[in-house]
Amino acid sequence: MKQRIVEILRTGEPQTSVTIQGWVRTKRELKEFTFVEVNDGSSLANLQIVLNPDLPQYTEILKQLNTGASLEVSGILVESPAKGQRIELNASEVKLYGESDPETYPLQKKRHSFEFLRTIGHLRGRTNTFGAVFRVRNAAATAIHQFFQERGFLWVHTPIMTASDCEGAGEMLAVTSLNLQDIPRLENSNQVDYGKDFFGKPAYLTVSGQLEAEVMAMALSDVYTFGPTFRAENSNTSRHLAEFWMVEPEMAFCDLTGDMDLAEAFLKYIFKFVLEKCPEDMEFFNQRIDKTVLETANNIIDNQFERVTYTEAVALLKKADKKFEFPVEWGLDLQSEHERYLAEELFKKPAIVTDYPVEIKAFYMRLNDDNKTVAAMDILAPKIGEIIGGSQREERLDILQRRLEQQGLSIEDYWWYLDLRRYGSVPHAGFGLGFERLVQFMTGMSNIRDVIPFPRAPLSIDF
Amino acid sequence: MKQRIVEILRTGEPQTSVTIQGWVRTKRELKEFTFVEVNDGSSLANLQIVLNPDLPQYTEILKQLNTGASLEVSGILVESPAKGQRIELNASEVKLYGESDPETYPLQKKRHSFEFLRTIGHLRGRTNTFGAVFRVRNAAATAIHQFFQERGFLWVHTPIMTASDCEGAGEMLAVTSLNLQDIPRLENSNQVDYGKDFFGKPAYLTVSGQLEAEVMAMALSDVYTFGPTFRAENSNTSRHLAEFWMVEPEMAFCDLTGDMDLAEAFLKYIFKFVLEKCPEDMEFFNQRIDKTVLETANNIIDNQFERVTYTEAVALLKKADKKFEFPVEWGLDLQSEHERYLAEELFKKPAIVTDYPVEIKAFYMRLNDDNKTVAAMDILAPKIGEIIGGSQREERLDILQRRLEQQGLSIEDYWWYLDLRRYGSVPHAGFGLGFERLVQFMTGMSNIRDVIPFPRAPLSIDF
Repeated sequence: MKQRIVEILRTGEPQTSVTIQGWVRTKRELKEFTFVEVNDGSSLANLQIVLNPDLPQYTEILKQLNTGASLEVSGILVESPAKGQRIELNASEVKLYGESDPETYPLQKKRHSFEFLRTIGHLRGRTNTFGAVFRVRNAAATAIHQFFQERGFLWVHTPIMTASDCEGAGEMLAVTSLNLQDIPRLENSNQVDYGKDFFGKPAYLTVSGQLEAEVMAMALSDVYTFGPTFRAENSNTSRHLAEFWMVEPEMAFCDLTGDMDLAEAFLKYIFKFVLEKCPEDMEFFNQRIDKTVLETANNIIDNQFERVTYTEAVALLKKADKKFEFPVEWGLDLQSEHERYLAEELFKKPAIVTDYPVEIKAFYMRLNDDNKTVAAMDILAPKIGEIIGGSQREERLDILQRRLEQQGLSIEDYWWYLDLRRYGSVPHAGFGLGFERLVQFMTGMSNIRDVIPFPRAPLSIDF
Repeated sequence: MKQRIVEILRTGEPQTSVTIQGWVRTKRELKEFTFVEVNDGSSLANLQIVLNPDLPQYTEILKQLNTGASLEVSGILVESPAKGQRIELNASEVKLYGESDPETYPLQKKRHSFEFLRTIGHLRGRTNTFGAVFRVRNAAATAIHQFFQERGFLWVHTPIMTASDCEGAGEMLAVTSLNLQDIPRLENSNQVDYGKDFFGKPAYLTVSGQLEAEVMAMALSDVYTFGPTFRAENSNTSRHLAEFWMVEPEMAFCDLTGDMDLAEAFLKYIFKFVLEKCPEDMEFFNQRIDKTVLETANNIIDNQFERVTYTEAVALLKKADKKFEFPVEWGLDLQSEHERYLAEELFKKPAIVTDYPVEIKAFYMRLNDDNKTVAAMDILAPKIGEIIGGSQREERLDILQRRLEQQGLSIEDYWWYLDLRRYGSVPHAGFGLGFERLVQFMTGMSNIRDVIPFPRAPLSIDF
């Protein structure tokens, strides 16, 4: 029976027969026999195969078993005399599926730079690092669904294509069926004839599912989104992607405290789940990529998050015995250096900063009674900085209308969003988590393009 | 403590105190007291609240408790004397959150058409039918993740934006950051200057993640996608969406038989999961929407799927004592009427048709030894028709290249896809399931726009 290598390494009993399939990582020919390390993507560790010269067609097979070749091996598990592995497989039958020419196969034993590996995105999943990234990514994604499903939240699919430049947030990518070579124009005008476009009007890729998630929460109480979102920002940095996955829970009958409680439990849950599910992969990241990732994970899991208001945070920053590059002043947004000081140096654990000045936050955040701040919250983690941003939403129709107007947004465009406040409005709250940022920080990978299988960024849309 | 209504209805004990929150569905004023039906989206059934006139501000509160209003109620659970409900809530405290003007609230007690409800997509989730649809949708999505995760598959996120018109399948929607009003042109030419576009070349919304899922399977063995896909088809039908979610597993070291085994287990698992998770909702669909949905679900769960080759299917159709509208001839694709005859009338259970003529199937499907058919499979279900399509993929480099050429596709564009056959190629297979089609058939909803929260179709992109 076919078995995954991860299971064999964990629980395979000596003297049992198994058949495995995978790809050759390395081959080591000795006089008496040959060791072949085989990986099937189910674990970081390879299974060591022992080939004896009495194997049929030994010499012929050996020639073909180069790095990258695919094969099936049947044999008997035996205790391994080698250090660091419990078990190995004595091959009695080897079937080669596909060869891999050592002259041209781009993934040789030597270490490749992540930049180079990005150019062979169709093969990089076969390396130790990317195998580990994709297993951790899967575990984190699974943790997210499991966390919400256990709590009775419904996964809702908010639209990818939208006609509204919702939050006016960032630049949006347009979607069209028009022929760019020959854009139709309105009669007697030079204006684009959107009537001929697929949707009959300008359409964009979503930057957030929040407003639509609010729609769903106003009917189903507790919901979450987990889907792709898009930004056309022309920033070629190690922390930005044009296409990334976002998680956005939205809870009816919930205030900012409930929002913070959920977000804190959520983060702890994901990190704990991943440490339990992928211990070897996380150990690998800690050894090879960033020596602080386990410490950071445990810091998040073990500590009750500090909660301070923005006003308190500003006072603490002013008192800090530290020179900051950017000014600290009530009314200015906190910069990354401020956020990191609070979490890393002052509190030495995750901190939630709440109640930011109304001027620097989005229109939908609930105005506090002081009329100067809104019920927003950002979670800052050591080594990470801001990882979650959320708020209680403005549920009062008149105030929401005023806030829209103040920001120069159109009341008409938001008719349905305002209707939610017109009919059975309730206090509600939610937050957003950028999934790739999470995986990036969890693994310590320095470039966000290395935690998503097929990264999209300015001028970059390969595979 | 706050509790969900679904839990109270199932397990709430008489004489315990609870607090619930939700929206008023109906109010019935009697002389001695008033009944209010409250729903929080967690279940189809409402919780009946009993308001006694000795409640503080009884008359005032009553006036505000109109359909759609939101409230919090604290009180004591008591056994209900009414038929069809185990328990009701004697209110001791009622807090109104948001009113709902009965003069303007669009969702009144009377039955509304689904067409009308589509125009108020921001409120339709508050109806019985759409609450049930979204709960079943969530359960089906959860079943999909759980099925694959239990089997060690990794969820991989394939790209939404792509530069390749992969399968040449259907019309694609373009993505651009160019200003349509003023498209830049190349110097000395009328051609669009894509160098100025976000990706530096034409980009589209994906129609399938399969090819990229194959990349991931060639490193990680067993993977699946579950994400949005797009079609610009200008068909305004009850079965087409421009934006829909698709599930595409891909397994390395797997042939067509393994593919069929997985697909059959997968379908049975989802239907079983949903029946167990949402029995009331499914009962509702069976009573109100389509009297065959439970029968169909059980037919899928209880029967071993019939497996026939396309060649056998054609012979059976020719022998059939039935007039078909479309001709039956070896080499022609099966039409919906043929598929339904096989599943509904002949086998009376789901059937898997395999090994279709090479001419009518995609280039990546594995050529059989007869050189006339490919290792494809379609699963046909009674009342549903085709629900899953899959294939073993062509893993032989030379044959794949020939097939690409025969279909007029560019070998250069597929360099990375061909590389998978160049280095460690393995037999592999997968299938695709349109998620909304599944939910549509599961619930019996006649229009696919009614099983996704915010449907996108030609000229339709509201909310």
